[in-house]
Amino acid sequence: MAQKFYIEDLNKHVGQSVELKGWVYNLRSSGKIKFLLLRDGTGLCQCVYFKGECDDASFEEFSKLTQETCVTVTGVVKEEKRSPGGYELSARTLKINAPSVDYPIGPKEHGPDFLLNNRHLWLRSKNQHAIIRLRAEIIKAIRDFFDGRGFTLVDAPIFTPSACEGTSTLFETEYFDEKAYLSQSGQLYMEAGAAAFGKVYCFGPTFRAEKSKTRRHLIEFWMVEPEVAFNDLYDNMELAEQFVEYIVQRVLKNKSEELKVLERNVEVLAKVKAPFPRLHYKEAAEIIFKENPQFKKGDDFGGTDETIISSKFEKPVFVHHYPSAIKAFYMKEDPSEPGSSMSCDLLATEGYGEIIGGGQREDDMIKLEAKVKEHGLKMEDFNWYFDLRRYGSFEHAGFGLGIERTVSWICGISHVRETIPFPRMYGRLRP
Amino acid sequence: MAQKFYIEDLNKHVGQSVELKGWVYNLRSSGKIKFLLLRDGTGLCQCVYFKGECDDASFEEFSKLTQETCVTVTGVVKEEKRSPGGYELSARTLKINAPSVDYPIGPKEHGPDFLLNNRHLWLRSKNQHAIIRLRAEIIKAIRDFFDGRGFTLVDAPIFTPSACEGTSTLFETEYFDEKAYLSQSGQLYMEAGAAAFGKVYCFGPTFRAEKSKTRRHLIEFWMVEPEVAFNDLYDNMELAEQFVEYIVQRVLKNKSEELKVLERNVEVLAKVKAPFPRLHYKEAAEIIFKENPQFKKGDDFGGTDETIISSKFEKPVFVHHYPSAIKAFYMKEDPSEPGSSMSCDLLATEGYGEIIGGGQREDDMIKLEAKVKEHGLKMEDFNWYFDLRRYGSFEHAGFGLGIERTVSWICGISHVRETIPFPRMYGRLRP
Repeated sequence: MAQKFYIEDLNKHVGQSVELKGWVYNLRSSGKIKFLLLRDGTGLCQCVYFKGECDDASFEEFSKLTQETCVTVTGVVKEEKRSPGGYELSARTLKINAPSVDYPIGPKEHGPDFLLNNRHLWLRSKNQHAIIRLRAEIIKAIRDFFDGRGFTLVDAPIFTPSACEGTSTLFETEYFDEKAYLSQSGQLYMEAGAAAFGKVYCFGPTFRAEKSKTRRHLIEFWMVEPEVAFNDLYDNMELAEQFVEYIVQRVLKNKSEELKVLERNVEVLAKVKAPFPRLHYKEAAEIIFKENPQFKKGDDFGGTDETIISSKFEKPVFVHHYPSAIKAFYMKEDPSEPGSSMSCDLLATEGYGEIIGGGQREDDMIKLEAKVKEHGLKMEDFNWYFDLRRYGSFEHAGFGLGIERTVSWICGISHVRETIPFPRMYGRLRP
Repeated sequence: MAQKFYIEDLNKHVGQSVELKGWVYNLRSSGKIKFLLLRDGTGLCQCVYFKGECDDASFEEFSKLTQETCVTVTGVVKEEKRSPGGYELSARTLKINAPSVDYPIGPKEHGPDFLLNNRHLWLRSKNQHAIIRLRAEIIKAIRDFFDGRGFTLVDAPIFTPSACEGTSTLFETEYFDEKAYLSQSGQLYMEAGAAAFGKVYCFGPTFRAEKSKTRRHLIEFWMVEPEVAFNDLYDNMELAEQFVEYIVQRVLKNKSEELKVLERNVEVLAKVKAPFPRLHYKEAAEIIFKENPQFKKGDDFGGTDETIISSKFEKPVFVHHYPSAIKAFYMKEDPSEPGSSMSCDLLATEGYGEIIGGGQREDDMIKLEAKVKEHGLKMEDFNWYFDLRRYGSFEHAGFGLGIERTVSWICGISHVRETIPFPRMYGRLRP
């Protein structure tokens, strides 16, 4: 491979002649000087064409440039504090590789539908670029956290023969001679994983066929789900808060440029350090009821309810011990508090809502069977899962963190549709 | 969280009293000494109960143990070279947390169907444990390779509106008022990603509805797909060989214990260092034809053909310039060699077959449109993809590496069904 130069590495090549390939991001001319703002995917670099210093033909060629024309430029790298990125190119030559006529995304305002229809191009824009780079860092941080703490990655299957939390929002497909459903959670499989590896996590796409168009819902979203043998509800909250602190602090450290592009209030994020406040469901319900008298104690929280809670704290806040009736069948009922589950959700700051849901799992075979029946699920679908209680049942707990909600919180953007490269929502399957 | 001790960390606690939780892996008794081989998911530890030294009740309790009983043990950590893992526990107490009656997987031979039906328990066995730990290390190595070289992770969507390489093996689902298909490759989306971020990769599950039961096929498998702007076919092969060398050498370094469990010939793997040999399709076809006269020049290679090629080399081998007719529509035709595509596959050593497929993409809009028509695909499905040629078309190349085939090669196991935690194959959707 001939040496390739990327804009993000220009600081290592000051004073050297380099060749850059990329696309026209912006153009300016003033008589004898022409400025090309070049985009190569790793950054932006101002290339300065000075008549007499650069090659004459290139100076002429400049007039043919349009937004997103693909070009090759050569020149000498100079430090220049006023330039985007801190470096610029004293350009010598300019070659057009491929034209770009009437690029659809301009500096004018576009509606969200137009932008989503052009998502494959919209990704080139500054804010979208920053969001996806932040997403990548968040994902890397998540994996490093678990890999560095003795967890084994155990990928959960996508095709499942049955529903783990009800069937109304499942995507179905013909799987040869039977039906298969697309996974909504790897949770049950992670319990098998925890018995085999102690500490495990899965990380993959999950699917929910919800006909709702809210700013918090995607049809296809990514989730990370750790599960730990011999952890209880309280260990679980401790793990979750260390985990969230780790992600946020690492993003602050490694991706400050991208957060600046998005104008994120980083002071709010800097405060995200363990321990996080913890509220019993009953305390949380009291707080909500005072401000939202419509709220019925015993019910799950809506978006507004979550915002009421999170507005009371500077850090993310746990709510634990939700009523068993509103949680999944596999949540352990607290023996010392009948009717309450050993569950915990984590609500992000500033009203970004629930980013984590989890808890301690029912390890008593008889209680678990009763729960499966109570939830109207088919016993035979869970026979393998009961085996985890038949053969050396064990205390264990885990949680799931939704990637897109976490990205939207950390980026400080209101709609999850911008937090994934190619969003799938109710009414959107393209591009 | 109270301090937890794991078997893999016992080397840090020699001489200390610790509490371990786990499952019975094996039992032996001889009069005044009883041996419990404990499994906690991170390793195995021999716990020695010596009558008189341990608590009397615990010595009695021992007789109730069966395979996979869940227990808590306490004792003092001792270095003991002859023990599995190099450490053992001078045990003091034993507590049974939960029984395990008639655990189905014993030391006797079981057929593959029985074991796959009990996959959730089979994962606890020594070899399966080693394979999945190797898989996790391979995945970590893959991500670290790209993350460390300036690539941005750009997740591709799973739901797609159309087929990228033919429709016969697609899974279909109702997506509200239309049909969606499960992705077989993130490739087209990665091309959009490369224009936005320069160097990108996606890593996720992909799906093929193939009614074949071979040792190389899964219905649901994971794939990593890098794509690089301004790379050509030769850059692409260089990237691929550095990548494969990195994965293999890192696994050798970090997971020698697991490779030993699987009795993998590590000398073969040690030789996997770039550069790899490269054969033009025509050279490869000549070699095959000599040993397999059934082979028709111009055809794609079958499993036997790949084995003929790989048997000639000690390293993985590239075959490049396959006929355009047998490659996907987006492969660039070599302008200097009409009818040949700028494609490359990488065949693993020892007959493990193709682990990488890739090449340089067609960047000429007119030729690409002709190819889409030629392949009988719908033009309107690719309109967004053509935009990548309309607006600053660029030379680019990439490849896909199949995770399960790579794991099976590195582990030296013949069937891909053991390389993924919960395999999905023709006729298998459970557990």
